[in-house]
Amino acid sequence: MARLLPTFMYLFYVPRFDGGDYLLPEEESRHCVKVLRLAAGDCLSITDGRGGLFLCRVVRADAKRCEITCVERTKGDDRRAFGLHVAVAPTKNIERFEWFLEKCTEVGIDEVTPLLCDRSERRIIHPDRLEKIIVAAMKQSLKTYLPALHPLTPVREFLRRPRESSGFIAHCGEGERQPLHRLYSPGRDAVILIGPEGDFSPDEIRLAADNGFLPVSLGQSRLRTETAGIVACHTIHLVNAMER
Amino acid sequence: MARLLPTFMYLFYVPRFDGGDYLLPEEESRHCVKVLRLAAGDCLSITDGRGGLFLCRVVRADAKRCEITCVERTKGDDRRAFGLHVAVAPTKNIERFEWFLEKCTEVGIDEVTPLLCDRSERRIIHPDRLEKIIVAAMKQSLKTYLPALHPLTPVREFLRRPRESSGFIAHCGEGERQPLHRLYSPGRDAVILIGPEGDFSPDEIRLAADNGFLPVSLGQSRLRTETAGIVACHTIHLVNAMER
Repeated sequence: MARLLPTFMYLFYVPRFDGGDYLLPEEESRHCVKVLRLAAGDCLSITDGRGGLFLCRVVRADAKRCEITCVERTKGDDRRAFGLHVAVAPTKNIERFEWFLEKCTEVGIDEVTPLLCDRSERRIIHPDRLEKIIVAAMKQSLKTYLPALHPLTPVREFLRRPRESSGFIAHCGEGERQPLHRLYSPGRDAVILIGPEGDFSPDEIRLAADNGFLPVSLGQSRLRTETAGIVACHTIHLVNAMER
Repeated sequence: MARLLPTFMYLFYVPRFDGGDYLLPEEESRHCVKVLRLAAGDCLSITDGRGGLFLCRVVRADAKRCEITCVERTKGDDRRAFGLHVAVAPTKNIERFEWFLEKCTEVGIDEVTPLLCDRSERRIIHPDRLEKIIVAAMKQSLKTYLPALHPLTPVREFLRRPRESSGFIAHCGEGERQPLHRLYSPGRDAVILIGPEGDFSPDEIRLAADNGFLPVSLGQSRLRTETAGIVACHTIHLVNAMER
């Protein structure tokens, strides 16, 4: 990776890219030639969002149809030993949820599922816009794995799905809760549920328990939904980092 | 604290409040009477931002001059066993810095010092607006200690100040760095430096080392300034929580 770093500053995302010659789409061509001012012979990197990292050269610096060719295929270094999935109710103010998506992509996450809960104030999202934010954050933080953004899912449907990962639900309701960092075992895949502004309903919390989701706390503070999401995400990273 | 919780939802901030009868300022009076619709006899809580928590009752619900009286003085439960100070270069896009202030207040922090660095793109801040954001986050997360926002300070001046806390500098430059969670000792007061978008200059990094600041990393990911700030803040919290 090291030797790629200088050129790696210019990271483009091309789904299903598999090397060879390629014509950048108009928007990327413009960014490449007009914004980054790359000329023929200059280097750039492309990720396919699935861990593939391709060192490429500009063949023809056309602001509408920039021709590039792959000179080396390699892998990103951002593969993790654990899977991390956060299922969270989108906030009433969508900017807070968008911020969460940017930050968890920076810190590192595999899957995000927007949840529809009994007390959700927001019941509609626009996946295209959210997807753009995740892609931008992936490129900006030089990652080669694109987090998956799943469709808005009713929490009861989500809870009933079969899963092999460790399940946790962060809520502020009644009942015993242990800190997430105590219950999570390093190396395990984790899925963490975060509720809406009004928290999960007692019925949702009961159903989560019935489906093996362990109730957890995220520290002493009362956190906003989007803050709880990023704190949960970073907690899993740190517990794993401390094991090494 | 538990018995305060129901009323605690209505937390007001009154600097230097020390109990007794009090006339809420016009803005708070309006919020109390028009927004929260509190009437005579209803309860609300006041914090002085220094750990004091006062259970009060509305005496006269006047939307311009709401009279309240203190019925019980107690202490908040958000005192920590460690001091946490993050010194960070404000971001070019001030919203990112404002977001950091909100989030670190939610997670818990004692002091924030905006730093003026060699590569700072932003060299002016508006403390009043930033102060408002911190106060709102303190109230929203039901804390009773108001984080101190210090004036914009040249990093060299900050580095040379005598201090008793453990000093760390998070940078992406040359040289050996250890993860923050390995170098920080639980219970110790910590001050962590976070650089601007273009990172600290080699000279700043050298000066930090000369003044006993340990170079640290915050994980595998390349993080934006404001993300590094919140990740550093949460790392200190989690290392302390794991000790308990």
